[in-house]
Amino acid sequence: MDRGAIHARLHRTVGNYAAKGAVDIALWDIIGIALGTPVHRLLGGFAPSVRVSHMVGFAPVGQMVDEARRYRDEYGITAFKVKVGRYPLSLDIELCTALRAELGSDVELYLDANRGWTAADAMRVLDATADLGLTFFEEPDDAKEVLGRRRLVQHSRVPIVADESAPSLGDAAREIQTGGASALSIKTARTGFTESQKVLAYAEAVGVEVIMGNQIDTAIGSTATVVFGAAFAHSSRNAAELSNFLDMADDLSAEPPVIVDGSVAAPALPGVGVTVDPDKLAYYRLDERNR
Amino acid sequence: MDRGAIHARLHRTVGNYAAKGAVDIALWDIIGIALGTPVHRLLGGFAPSVRVSHMVGFAPVGQMVDEARRYRDEYGITAFKVKVGRYPLSLDIELCTALRAELGSDVELYLDANRGWTAADAMRVLDATADLGLTFFEEPDDAKEVLGRRRLVQHSRVPIVADESAPSLGDAAREIQTGGASALSIKTARTGFTESQKVLAYAEAVGVEVIMGNQIDTAIGSTATVVFGAAFAHSSRNAAELSNFLDMADDLSAEPPVIVDGSVAAPALPGVGVTVDPDKLAYYRLDERNR
Repeated sequence: MDRGAIHARLHRTVGNYAAKGAVDIALWDIIGIALGTPVHRLLGGFAPSVRVSHMVGFAPVGQMVDEARRYRDEYGITAFKVKVGRYPLSLDIELCTALRAELGSDVELYLDANRGWTAADAMRVLDATADLGLTFFEEPDDAKEVLGRRRLVQHSRVPIVADESAPSLGDAAREIQTGGASALSIKTARTGFTESQKVLAYAEAVGVEVIMGNQIDTAIGSTATVVFGAAFAHSSRNAAELSNFLDMADDLSAEPPVIVDGSVAAPALPGVGVTVDPDKLAYYRLDERNR
Repeated sequence: MDRGAIHARLHRTVGNYAAKGAVDIALWDIIGIALGTPVHRLLGGFAPSVRVSHMVGFAPVGQMVDEARRYRDEYGITAFKVKVGRYPLSLDIELCTALRAELGSDVELYLDANRGWTAADAMRVLDATADLGLTFFEEPDDAKEVLGRRRLVQHSRVPIVADESAPSLGDAAREIQTGGASALSIKTARTGFTESQKVLAYAEAVGVEVIMGNQIDTAIGSTATVVFGAAFAHSSRNAAELSNFLDMADDLSAEPPVIVDGSVAAPALPGVGVTVDPDKLAYYRLDERNR
């Protein structure tokens, strides 16, 4: 229960966000199981479910449109994160135009360039897509391009989302405070539940939106994102990136999240709500070198 | 459990911080009792106790020194919040000098003027007390003195604490972001546990210190402050203002906090850890007009 002291010890080592995040989620899981209560409700229990956003990965335009249409028809997903950042810029401008034309005005489209462009090129893309109603633009350029990034944030009507440039509470605050971003991606795989809650409170305090992001999480990690995202008003406002686990050939989870009508329900089980399949754990574990 | 939805409803009414804070603390009490767990541990369980700061109220200098000495000797308290803000300025400058001379360098002394001075006068006091090692200066002038306050914050080596100018998360962020304060007073009586946690996370994110403040709370309110203050590293760093209930002739609590060696232990009872005396509640309640 007394995780404050545990975090103080973890804090003495810098970095290692993913390891610390996993420890924190495991602590919450233990607490929830000990109390016989879903962690989703311990954290706040705001919404029974979260809307899902699907990430459309690089492929020829026709295939990307088909993928989005398939996820909409099969899972009811209406929010899509479009991977961009390619040259020539026209490739991704045409992609965005085609997605909007084919999917209509009722779907949400936002971009993630994973630092693929310069700030100047990102502004060209924003100009060329100004009438497409894009809602967010994640890491358009390298955040280390310090002045270019700030100029981009100042000029963009679309919020610029910090993801890999804001892996911790301190980084998130620094990027927002200094004009390096105007929205934040929160990933439970890197800030667990405890530090994610701080990032979320910071974002709410200063009035910036957040997106629950995905580190190409397994079903277990995706469930953790559902638990956190649904727990608070400010984290459940936007669709959460939850569909990557569908691409995996196998998973440790005995009960992967189920996407119905574009949403995933927060688990009702005590703890984080993940059931690990013992046979799969035995098969995949590396510590006993038994594969 | 699902207090997120309750807060969303409360949020539709502006203001009424004390009422909303009380509802939030009551919700946490219900949750803790239902789970058989102290709320202190549900929140984070960082420290087993918090250090106490005692507020020294207006009186002739000799009496104020005697009061501080008595609280040190009787309760082991070594942190004192000194009420200032009087004219001529020499009154309070002499008071601070006397307190430091009489109590020695091992006690913590900080000021609260409750908007009693102008920014210019507050700077004169800071200059005159520069060698006394004061740690905080709360609401030196009226925060509505917008430019004067910012000039004061810029020039003061002592953190300027926002209290009544920052009664909510949004106000706290606004005052810090715009240079109107460089530290925050958190009062559970006004932001409950849920919003206090957000204010605390914001303060941690941007690197400002917090003091757990007191609304002249009863033993019940003071216990709530102990529960919250001890739960997190960032809220337990400074002494919490907890001794006002000692001045009250009576109280609803059957077991008031006990100050030992200058600290109060977080309650080990499920919930917030307050036991209400039913006879006193019957005597003092106003809704049945039975006095």
